[in-house]
Amino acid sequence: MTTATIVSAIRTESAYQQLLRLAQDAKLIASSASLLSWDQETMMPDGGVEYRSRQMAMLAKLAHDHLVDPRVGDLLAACEGDRDLMAAPHGDAAANIREIRRDYDRATKLPSDLVEEMAKTASVAQHEWAAARKESSFSRFKPWLRKNIELLRRKAECLGVPRDGEPWDALADEYEPGMTAAQIETLFTPLRSRLKKLLDDLLGSSKKPSNAFNEIALPIEAQKKFVRFIAEAIGFDFKRGRLDTSTHPFCGGTHCNDVRLTTRFHDVNVNDALGSTMHECGHGIYEQGLLFAHVGTPLGESVSLGIHESQSRMWENQVGRSLPFWKWLYPKLGEFFGSATKGLSLEDVYGGANVVEPGFIRVEADEATYNMHIMIRFELERAILRGDLDVDDIPETWNAKYKDYLGLTVPDDRRGCLQDVHWSSASMGYFPTYTLGNLYAAQIFEKVMQEIPDLHRQFEKGKFDDLRHWLNRNIHAHGRRYLPDELCQRVTGKPLSADPLMRHLEGKLRPLYGA
Amino acid sequence: MTTATIVSAIRTESAYQQLLRLAQDAKLIASSASLLSWDQETMMPDGGVEYRSRQMAMLAKLAHDHLVDPRVGDLLAACEGDRDLMAAPHGDAAANIREIRRDYDRATKLPSDLVEEMAKTASVAQHEWAAARKESSFSRFKPWLRKNIELLRRKAECLGVPRDGEPWDALADEYEPGMTAAQIETLFTPLRSRLKKLLDDLLGSSKKPSNAFNEIALPIEAQKKFVRFIAEAIGFDFKRGRLDTSTHPFCGGTHCNDVRLTTRFHDVNVNDALGSTMHECGHGIYEQGLLFAHVGTPLGESVSLGIHESQSRMWENQVGRSLPFWKWLYPKLGEFFGSATKGLSLEDVYGGANVVEPGFIRVEADEATYNMHIMIRFELERAILRGDLDVDDIPETWNAKYKDYLGLTVPDDRRGCLQDVHWSSASMGYFPTYTLGNLYAAQIFEKVMQEIPDLHRQFEKGKFDDLRHWLNRNIHAHGRRYLPDELCQRVTGKPLSADPLMRHLEGKLRPLYGA
Repeated sequence: MTTATIVSAIRTESAYQQLLRLAQDAKLIASSASLLSWDQETMMPDGGVEYRSRQMAMLAKLAHDHLVDPRVGDLLAACEGDRDLMAAPHGDAAANIREIRRDYDRATKLPSDLVEEMAKTASVAQHEWAAARKESSFSRFKPWLRKNIELLRRKAECLGVPRDGEPWDALADEYEPGMTAAQIETLFTPLRSRLKKLLDDLLGSSKKPSNAFNEIALPIEAQKKFVRFIAEAIGFDFKRGRLDTSTHPFCGGTHCNDVRLTTRFHDVNVNDALGSTMHECGHGIYEQGLLFAHVGTPLGESVSLGIHESQSRMWENQVGRSLPFWKWLYPKLGEFFGSATKGLSLEDVYGGANVVEPGFIRVEADEATYNMHIMIRFELERAILRGDLDVDDIPETWNAKYKDYLGLTVPDDRRGCLQDVHWSSASMGYFPTYTLGNLYAAQIFEKVMQEIPDLHRQFEKGKFDDLRHWLNRNIHAHGRRYLPDELCQRVTGKPLSADPLMRHLEGKLRPLYGA
Repeated sequence: MTTATIVSAIRTESAYQQLLRLAQDAKLIASSASLLSWDQETMMPDGGVEYRSRQMAMLAKLAHDHLVDPRVGDLLAACEGDRDLMAAPHGDAAANIREIRRDYDRATKLPSDLVEEMAKTASVAQHEWAAARKESSFSRFKPWLRKNIELLRRKAECLGVPRDGEPWDALADEYEPGMTAAQIETLFTPLRSRLKKLLDDLLGSSKKPSNAFNEIALPIEAQKKFVRFIAEAIGFDFKRGRLDTSTHPFCGGTHCNDVRLTTRFHDVNVNDALGSTMHECGHGIYEQGLLFAHVGTPLGESVSLGIHESQSRMWENQVGRSLPFWKWLYPKLGEFFGSATKGLSLEDVYGGANVVEPGFIRVEADEATYNMHIMIRFELERAILRGDLDVDDIPETWNAKYKDYLGLTVPDDRRGCLQDVHWSSASMGYFPTYTLGNLYAAQIFEKVMQEIPDLHRQFEKGKFDDLRHWLNRNIHAHGRRYLPDELCQRVTGKPLSADPLMRHLEGKLRPLYGA
């Protein structure tokens, strides 16, 4: 190296360090907001609502100011011009720079008056949606949905619709970087027909798994101890996290060493609390698996909603609804629930976790029908954004698809197109990440099973460390180093496909239903 | 009004509105930090410590940047030059402007490198103090205390030592605006001799109140229900606040509609939990009594630590250790503690709340000896800051005063001059606010008793609304409109004096001790 090269290297090194510090500063603010948000859902007294929204707006503004600081643009340009830094495309520096660029471009492409108008409109729209759902009155929600769609189209335009792409792609990129509607369609089309066939066979069979376990009332305090025991068993680290109760379970917190999960409890059906807990634990184990050394930078962040969801679904479904898991857990039920669960057989509890039953409500759906709910939403929002579907026609189209895909006659809009919060908060491009999660989970889990052939025998003994460590190494530790599709290819050796999920569902459900 | 006057009025009106908005913005950040701080003491998993300190530092920096924003200085100058705004010296605008000026001057007078050095030094000093206290090794703490004192002297110099004043005054002004060491001395000197006489008489008497209630082990869950019941009864509003558990009880939260109290529990001695709870409820009722209309501005903030402490002490002592209070509560003990408290008489429980016993530890002291602990600390820190006492001589001087004032031989520095965190965190000028709180409480309570003569009969019926509403109106609602001594004069008609506290203590304790 010549002196000039060294001086230049030091200067650029310093640009990179400065860039990281600015990113870390923005994250310190955003993560503080995240703690306030968790607190609002779990701890805050009702009286705090109004001032809390002012605090949140202030922190959002400060975080955004940091994100679009012109120094970030200058430092990015300096770093991107440095060949040494960018030499290894997936090296620490190049990956961080690429992802900070992604965040910076997204943040700076959106004019602040649009961001503000979207936030304000969404706030009223959510309120009107909640009232409209209560009244089951789509017409009450319609003007706000129309306004949201108009703003979403403007947002997509500002972000830039890719050549050969469509507005949906620009929006979805925020949740699943690089994913397009065309790719989703390629995945969903075969999935839909194969799921339809499977559901027809299952529901046409005279054999059904027992639902007895789901019908027993169990004390909430016992359920709490039960799910906490399982959260600890599968390896959620309570020295670096909490588990509380909230109306809607979620995974929040501030960073990998402070992860806050919530779950919920009903008097009847401990499987709901168990499923919610394992689901959120999956999210939480991912968050805890991010590396503190990279905290506040892209390498210390989760890569996409789809991959995040794959972690929650894997623990919820591939682990928590498997026979080996129940072989371990079944003999322990008495310790928590005494005589209440005494009459149940292993078949009852394993079957109870795997009952398939088409219903109107997405969030209550079983593992097999769930994806149908997602496909319907994806098809609708894609058509809406393309201009192929008018807001007026949403209920009719929604109901027709429910009839077609799930054989159900939707009784009212409350249980139909008004059931989800997403569109009211101006989120489109989000729904498919749930099914992507199911697909990734199945594909990744097949790979784990190949690499750890006795995994199911480990589950039978209540051992989950090998699975967790494998996920830590192969998924979590990478943060945003690879894009989701790169990560999938790298980890499983193949692009994402519907095959593993169908194998998982068919392999488990057909025997249970004798179909 | 001429057009020019109107235009000028609008312009200045707008300067005041802008000033308020900047103050409110700074408070949104500071109150977010306050929530993070509460969370750290009550909810945060251990793993979160390191990142939390980074978040807190970031928010502190942002809040400070807002506080010293040069626009604040410009707007203050514009407002102060507006005769209409400043016409009524205790009107909303004039009071807010005066207090924002106080905060702005204090913040801008301190160079940021001094603030940073103090924070860094205090952070190490607190750590070293904790270790030194554990080892009872004053020499370990000495270099850090010396460093803190040097920084405190520099701080006092930057803030400006008042003419005829001393460094202590400049520091104390942060906690008790306008209070000086000379005024404290005038209050404390007669208090000390009268307390000494009272203590000699009480401890020399052969009659003593029963300590039986303090020696009964009671289940923590029952204690929790008990103190929650009392918090609700005296009027802490749980729709606008919470009560949790922490090692050191405190009152936190973010604003009047979200007040977070903590208390603590021991297996034995429910009076500790009760006293802590009523004390923190007193702080909390003050905070809840601030007006939401003024949130984020000085008129929506508490006026001083001394007045704050008067509210906590009044509910803890004037209410919670009074005979009428126990006449109401005594018959209810069985509802919470079953047979465990069955053998106790009313005299046992009232007496148990009023045992006087000199001890080494300030935070465990009873109502009468407590003030002696404070006087000793005040005399020492005043002498230290004047340069009349060297750090080397602190333990000896401390121990001599404990012998003199409380008749105790301090066994080691752990139970002596190393017991409090204050000096390690570079807080001097703070301690006297505890005794000021006791003095204000007694003087204000005498006034309430004059205005509501049947107050004690109300306590006997478990009615505390009249007292709380009186405090709301006369103390809380004013925020920082008056300085503490103005408030005292306005509310009680007299300057602060030691007489009411001595009347309170003598009137209660002499009969109990037959002295």
